[in-house]
Amino acid sequence: MLEVRKNVLKQNDVIARALRDRFRAQGTLAVSLVSSPGAGKTTFLEKTLTLLKPRFRVAALVGDLATENDALRLARSEVPVRQITTGTLCHLEAAMIEHALEDWNLGQLDVLFIENVGNLVCPASYDLGEDLRMVLLSVTEGEDKPLKYPTIFNSADVAVITKIDLAAAVEFDERAANANIQAVRPGMQVFKVSAKTNEGMDDCLQFLSDALTERSQKMTV
Amino acid sequence: MLEVRKNVLKQNDVIARALRDRFRAQGTLAVSLVSSPGAGKTTFLEKTLTLLKPRFRVAALVGDLATENDALRLARSEVPVRQITTGTLCHLEAAMIEHALEDWNLGQLDVLFIENVGNLVCPASYDLGEDLRMVLLSVTEGEDKPLKYPTIFNSADVAVITKIDLAAAVEFDERAANANIQAVRPGMQVFKVSAKTNEGMDDCLQFLSDALTERSQKMTV
Repeated sequence: MLEVRKNVLKQNDVIARALRDRFRAQGTLAVSLVSSPGAGKTTFLEKTLTLLKPRFRVAALVGDLATENDALRLARSEVPVRQITTGTLCHLEAAMIEHALEDWNLGQLDVLFIENVGNLVCPASYDLGEDLRMVLLSVTEGEDKPLKYPTIFNSADVAVITKIDLAAAVEFDERAANANIQAVRPGMQVFKVSAKTNEGMDDCLQFLSDALTERSQKMTV
Repeated sequence: MLEVRKNVLKQNDVIARALRDRFRAQGTLAVSLVSSPGAGKTTFLEKTLTLLKPRFRVAALVGDLATENDALRLARSEVPVRQITTGTLCHLEAAMIEHALEDWNLGQLDVLFIENVGNLVCPASYDLGEDLRMVLLSVTEGEDKPLKYPTIFNSADVAVITKIDLAAAVEFDERAANANIQAVRPGMQVFKVSAKTNEGMDDCLQFLSDALTERSQKMTV
């Protein structure tokens, strides 16, 4: 079983590498989102797409076991969105991204978001060729999640604490959450947002905008 | 990969069957809990153990990738608790339960709770020999989760909607949640609880108590 799994991961890495080269060659910043189910990935993404759209050419791929609900929700932001339905598979794999992008012209995209299946375990092991992986943690889930799911926090580049409008109602201990994130991934940048009230969204969008500028400068050089 | 996975599942089923026979022979009711991370399994279980303890001999096994936090929390209820640390594995398997119970005398237990790893996908496929599988869904996760993770709702016997003290704050649509549960698993019994305020806990405990009585009657016959 371990041997087979190793081979699957190796194949995945090969495809992910090719995807990453393609994103870089076309100047597209690929950003993936991982979290547990219900942490607010789709709401955060809908808000992000809507706010970035006036300035950048954005699009999204969204993974789920079943239903096209998320694609329908994201379509309200009026940017290109495609649903990837994984059936019983608990994570996205690079080959699914490659397949979903087959007829897309990345040269016309500044930022491609990839929303993974809601799962704090398995997506950690699968490189999707993304430049940035954001791990979302909602205030309602408990501050201990980084300690309990260290691999996915370790595999991510930034953390986003979501639903902070509910922080008081759930007695969220921000200090403990931060300490737990830093214990697992020292130095990790952490954003706090509410996609409902827009609190903190500016900082998060500025971060994405800076990452995109950096990407363009590298291309020019 | 599929072939290997099939064999793993087949082996798991053999061990789960043996466990189920053992639970029945000893008169122990085995109840597993599945949910996404942060849905409140441990808080619900701590409350349940504390409330059942005066009337029944109860114990718990609790699965997590890392940390012994949950076992420490559950130990406050002063019943036997054992942590199963799965490493990078995203679910419990029957063999882990068998191993964890090796030196336990089930004859001295009325109810054994098994808290699975927080994950709405993979645990669905692994029979743990339990008599009852409870799927927990917190009001903060969104009403669409049954539709998005149909397999796990289908594999469960009852659903428990948790954190209902937060229902108003998150504008939880109970009717939609119920409709989605019934769409995936028609006729499924649904409990609504708050382990914080105790609301709804009585009904849920009565249900477990009835299940245990039924088990004892079957044994006597």
